[in-house]
Amino acid sequence: MKKIRVGIMGFGTIGKRVADAVMKQEDMELIGVTGRSHNWRIRSAHRKGIPIYTIPDHQLDGHGFKLEGTIQDLLKKVDIIIDCAPKPKGKENRAKYYEPAKMKAIYQGGEKPDVGEVSFTAQCNYDECRGKDHIRVVSCNTTGLARTLGAIHTKYGIKEVYATMIRRGADPWDIRHGPINAVVPVLELPSHHGPDLKTVLPDVEIFTTALSVSSTLMHVHTITCECKKTPTVEEAVEIFKKTPRVRVVYNESLVRSTAEIMELAKDWGYPRGDMPEICVWKEAIGVVGNKLLYLQAIHQESDVVCENIDAIRAALDVCDAETSMQKTNESLGIPQHGMVEK
Amino acid sequence: MKKIRVGIMGFGTIGKRVADAVMKQEDMELIGVTGRSHNWRIRSAHRKGIPIYTIPDHQLDGHGFKLEGTIQDLLKKVDIIIDCAPKPKGKENRAKYYEPAKMKAIYQGGEKPDVGEVSFTAQCNYDECRGKDHIRVVSCNTTGLARTLGAIHTKYGIKEVYATMIRRGADPWDIRHGPINAVVPVLELPSHHGPDLKTVLPDVEIFTTALSVSSTLMHVHTITCECKKTPTVEEAVEIFKKTPRVRVVYNESLVRSTAEIMELAKDWGYPRGDMPEICVWKEAIGVVGNKLLYLQAIHQESDVVCENIDAIRAALDVCDAETSMQKTNESLGIPQHGMVEK
Amino acid sequence: MKKIRVGIMGFGTIGKRVADAVMKQEDMELIGVTGRSHNWRIRSAHRKGIPIYTIPDHQLDGHGFKLEGTIQDLLKKVDIIIDCAPKPKGKENRAKYYEPAKMKAIYQGGEKPDVGEVSFTAQCNYDECRGKDHIRVVSCNTTGLARTLGAIHTKYGIKEVYATMIRRGADPWDIRHGPINAVVPVLELPSHHGPDLKTVLPDVEIFTTALSVSSTLMHVHTITCECKKTPTVEEAVEIFKKTPRVRVVYNESLVRSTAEIMELAKDWGYPRGDMPEICVWKEAIGVVGNKLLYLQAIHQESDVVCENIDAIRAALDVCDAETSMQKTNESLGIPQHGMVEK
Amino acid sequence: MKKIRVGIMGFGTIGKRVADAVMKQEDMELIGVTGRSHNWRIRSAHRKGIPIYTIPDHQLDGHGFKLEGTIQDLLKKVDIIIDCAPKPKGKENRAKYYEPAKMKAIYQGGEKPDVGEVSFTAQCNYDECRGKDHIRVVSCNTTGLARTLGAIHTKYGIKEVYATMIRRGADPWDIRHGPINAVVPVLELPSHHGPDLKTVLPDVEIFTTALSVSSTLMHVHTITCECKKTPTVEEAVEIFKKTPRVRVVYNESLVRSTAEIMELAKDWGYPRGDMPEICVWKEAIGVVGNKLLYLQAIHQESDVVCENIDAIRAALDVCDAETSMQKTNESLGIPQHGMVEK
Repeated sequence: MKKIRVGIMGFGTIGKRVADAVMKQEDMELIGVTGRSHNWRIRSAHRKGIPIYTIPDHQLDGHGFKLEGTIQDLLKKVDIIIDCAPKPKGKENRAKYYEPAKMKAIYQGGEKPDVGEVSFTAQCNYDECRGKDHIRVVSCNTTGLARTLGAIHTKYGIKEVYATMIRRGADPWDIRHGPINAVVPVLELPSHHGPDLKTVLPDVEIFTTALSVSSTLMHVHTITCECKKTPTVEEAVEIFKKTPRVRVVYNESLVRSTAEIMELAKDWGYPRGDMPEICVWKEAIGVVGNKLLYLQAIHQESDVVCENIDAIRAALDVCDAETSMQKTNESLGIPQHGMVEK
Repeated sequence: MKKIRVGIMGFGTIGKRVADAVMKQEDMELIGVTGRSHNWRIRSAHRKGIPIYTIPDHQLDGHGFKLEGTIQDLLKKVDIIIDCAPKPKGKENRAKYYEPAKMKAIYQGGEKPDVGEVSFTAQCNYDECRGKDHIRVVSCNTTGLARTLGAIHTKYGIKEVYATMIRRGADPWDIRHGPINAVVPVLELPSHHGPDLKTVLPDVEIFTTALSVSSTLMHVHTITCECKKTPTVEEAVEIFKKTPRVRVVYNESLVRSTAEIMELAKDWGYPRGDMPEICVWKEAIGVVGNKLLYLQAIHQESDVVCENIDAIRAALDVCDAETSMQKTNESLGIPQHGMVEK
Repeated sequence: MKKIRVGIMGFGTIGKRVADAVMKQEDMELIGVTGRSHNWRIRSAHRKGIPIYTIPDHQLDGHGFKLEGTIQDLLKKVDIIIDCAPKPKGKENRAKYYEPAKMKAIYQGGEKPDVGEVSFTAQCNYDECRGKDHIRVVSCNTTGLARTLGAIHTKYGIKEVYATMIRRGADPWDIRHGPINAVVPVLELPSHHGPDLKTVLPDVEIFTTALSVSSTLMHVHTITCECKKTPTVEEAVEIFKKTPRVRVVYNESLVRSTAEIMELAKDWGYPRGDMPEICVWKEAIGVVGNKLLYLQAIHQESDVVCENIDAIRAALDVCDAETSMQKTNESLGIPQHGMVEK
Repeated sequence: MKKIRVGIMGFGTIGKRVADAVMKQEDMELIGVTGRSHNWRIRSAHRKGIPIYTIPDHQLDGHGFKLEGTIQDLLKKVDIIIDCAPKPKGKENRAKYYEPAKMKAIYQGGEKPDVGEVSFTAQCNYDECRGKDHIRVVSCNTTGLARTLGAIHTKYGIKEVYATMIRRGADPWDIRHGPINAVVPVLELPSHHGPDLKTVLPDVEIFTTALSVSSTLMHVHTITCECKKTPTVEEAVEIFKKTPRVRVVYNESLVRSTAEIMELAKDWGYPRGDMPEICVWKEAIGVVGNKLLYLQAIHQESDVVCENIDAIRAALDVCDAETSMQKTNESLGIPQHGMVEK
């Protein structure tokens, strides 16, 4: 079978992970990535033998590695481009590079929804995205909401959701941003996360508030979900266990915090110590009347990586959702049906 | 008028603040405090001329200051004792010291409700507590909930509240406790805060979840309050402005975080840079249907100090709630009716 | 006696503290401060009744407080201006405003040394600065080094100093800057602190390295000071106890960290909980051969405030160093000769 | 060749890493590990198929995995035991279990030096440790000092070292310990790190001070090393590049902090994102007279893992230092001669 030739625009937090993931797909080939600034990341790409292309105003000359050409050169060699440029460059890149080259593109969730024809979460609306030219993978937070709420919605029907997002203040490598010692609310109501969920789960009513805290590891969501039918805790645990890319974690196994989830991810051998699965604490699942309450943790750097891989297959319409997700999960070490063991 | 003679058991975070506050009351006299370990706190008490009494196993000999006697000696000289011992010592102290001495006592919210005959928040149930012998001032978080929800309940009637408490991981001076870099959910549903509110607002249904974060400054609550009548944002702002010991803060004045609230408290001259008022962000007040949403910040070290002062007057039944709160507020620099200016 | 009329340019971390300090001097009068952005700080100035002047492009209209005029108007009414503008605005302000108005000015240590004719630390070189028109108070870190090393130098003669500055990553109110979880070395050798010390102690050889950490409270210096004569620990303790604006703190009193120093400052009643004194830990003073080792903590927000006050008197040549420092210390609650008690 | 049969006592931060490393050695076989508490770590061991043995008072019954026997049973099946129990259990374990079983043992650096006959750093004193029964691998900090100072000492001769250790406050998974917002000096002079270095480099004079900060990632050392011959920066860079298990990192490649080193380790594919090499910043290497100054970062969780592997071969005297280090490095992905590229 001819492999899908993939290019990646941008080699930051998401770009480098998508690159690694593409290289693990049997049906894909990584043709190249673009670099701009000189830093350890692009040196790592070079060290792994990934061809490096450039964008205007790059600073990659004189550092001892071969540059393969420009973004335009890269676009001539690929079937699809994954835009991992910092927001809001994706929209600009679409107009400047991808549309002139008639190139299919996948964008990230930091872009506004109108960057693509559709927004994407594999287990929610893969079919709707098949064959589309411009697909936006929703953000890490929205992906987390979509995975668990999508499953709840299928089972019970959701009337209304209220959620608080406790967001990490910066990524682990980011030494510039704070806060060092504060809780910083997002002073707009609702925060943008709620409306964004409707791009993949259009009939779920949701209202979100958000705050940033002095942590770099994961986002945490506290969710109050009013269902149309009465849920039970036991059923909810079973639903989350069976939902793809969702993992039930256990206080009883001393997984009490985002720090311990990150350690678990390292112990279980996930590359980079990433945790691509949305983690729901078993002991914090509760029911009050028709309301289901739960807490989930989102690894902002990695949960959308598998979504990008599936979005490639959707855009090129090479297989159905189940086949794609199965391939992606197997190649990336993600269990097929959530976590069965503690 | 004869002054109320007050003793304080324990000279930690709350004890030292209550001592300062008592010394500012025209109708009270601080007779003494108890110390146990030698540290800068008890040295500060000594430096301020506060008589120091001891409890068994104290380590205060040989540090160059006069010890006035034991806790039993102190109890002979006072009209009331404020128990600020670390939880759960209060209950033990009641049985061991206060009851044998037939002494009225005020306890802190870290104790279980049954330490006292009643739990107390001045603006909610002062009258109920008049003349009682053993009164428990509720915790900093419960006090914060009681002040704002009490006002909302009076205006609209509350059907049901869902709240998430984002808690500081440790007090500012506490170098032993973490987390340094994690979000740590309280893995029990509901957290204890909800039930505790019912000790002062018995007819408010509330369900709370809680998490600890890497910050030392304040707790933050995100509150979703379903009312019996439809609220408006404008009305809610007015209610909070007029509620005693509640302050509306403004993103528009760059008060965007708990750190800036603490700086504001310093700039406005509150002693120690404390913020005894519950702070509600104007820009984060919202209404969806009958639901009122808001965010509030609680200074864990100081919001209950004024409550302790009022509880003294309630226990000794020397005046009504309004008189007591007015005296307390004036002496401590707290505005009578929330914050009028930005 | 006619009071010295003082204006302040800039109302941030230092400006607001200098304003408070000026208002406490019997021989000074605060004529006004300049504001630029609308925020809680300038509202606090307004609330305290401080006249507010403006600089170009200010955003203070329409917020309900009276503006007294421009910086040029302010300069007409004062004897001296304290420039507390963010670096490196001081130099620009000198050329643009102060020199055309023939106005004496005090600058802050974030400016390069050439902003003034001299750099200033009261106990090191007050005399040299008497009558000068443009005086730069050195930075918080340099002030800390100057106070303790100046005293050591007087006693033993210093051959060479190696110091590491562990710097707080951001001020307590600053929610934008990190790092949240990292140690960030200053990757230049030496860091700028060493050379800056020579502006006030020209014959002390010093080499400094610096790192930023995830804390907002204080800087900490680890100092290895090779002396010309052999020091002893006991003598060093006595020197630090007798050095103005230096405080010996005690692990034995549980003052084990910067957090506990900040709490001590609150307990002792310093306004805002500031600690204007340089704190040296008794238990970390050591001697190896001719080398004196010690650790000191610097409150970045406040140690230079008293220096600004003294610099005003030096610039206007109204009294000698000892008289000025005594007035300043008394008015600000700083002990005259370091801390005598634990 | 018959493989060395290895048992591991304790499965925490170090034990689990040593287990992974043993499994990667061609000449070793992991026979089993001991567990005590039920948590995600021991579940991970189970998941990987590692046989689990127990110690008294364990809590591993009833969690669905097979227990192979007691520590005594494990000791019957192995050639050597690696003690990774929390300090100071190693000494107790030696007396209670290893000596009665006449078992060779490797201990960790948290133990006091007298737990073993010798202390060990592969590149410093492997030969001295060949055939010894009880070997102590020095701590992460001492290992870091030994690697770089050993190389400097060989080249120039060291007269005296002054070092400040800026220590992470807790490990990444540890949510219990602080400080959240403080710098906490070790209030003893010297800190224990200096004396400990002399257990592997006995003729290096060193004096250390230490502080803890609010970070979980790495320790950082600032080192002032007075040499017997005059060093140059260029030579020092070359020495560090050629020293095993030392890596020169570059501000020029944006590796500016411990956070970026940890990200680099992930990008380069080190398991768990560990960084077993001691990292020295090129841009912070300086020379003043005979003094060499540099900054290094130590990954507390992993730098001693390769040392434990080498210590096994030394204890059983199966090969020389160079052969062992080469095998260990190759199996663990550590470059043979530091980092050659940026």
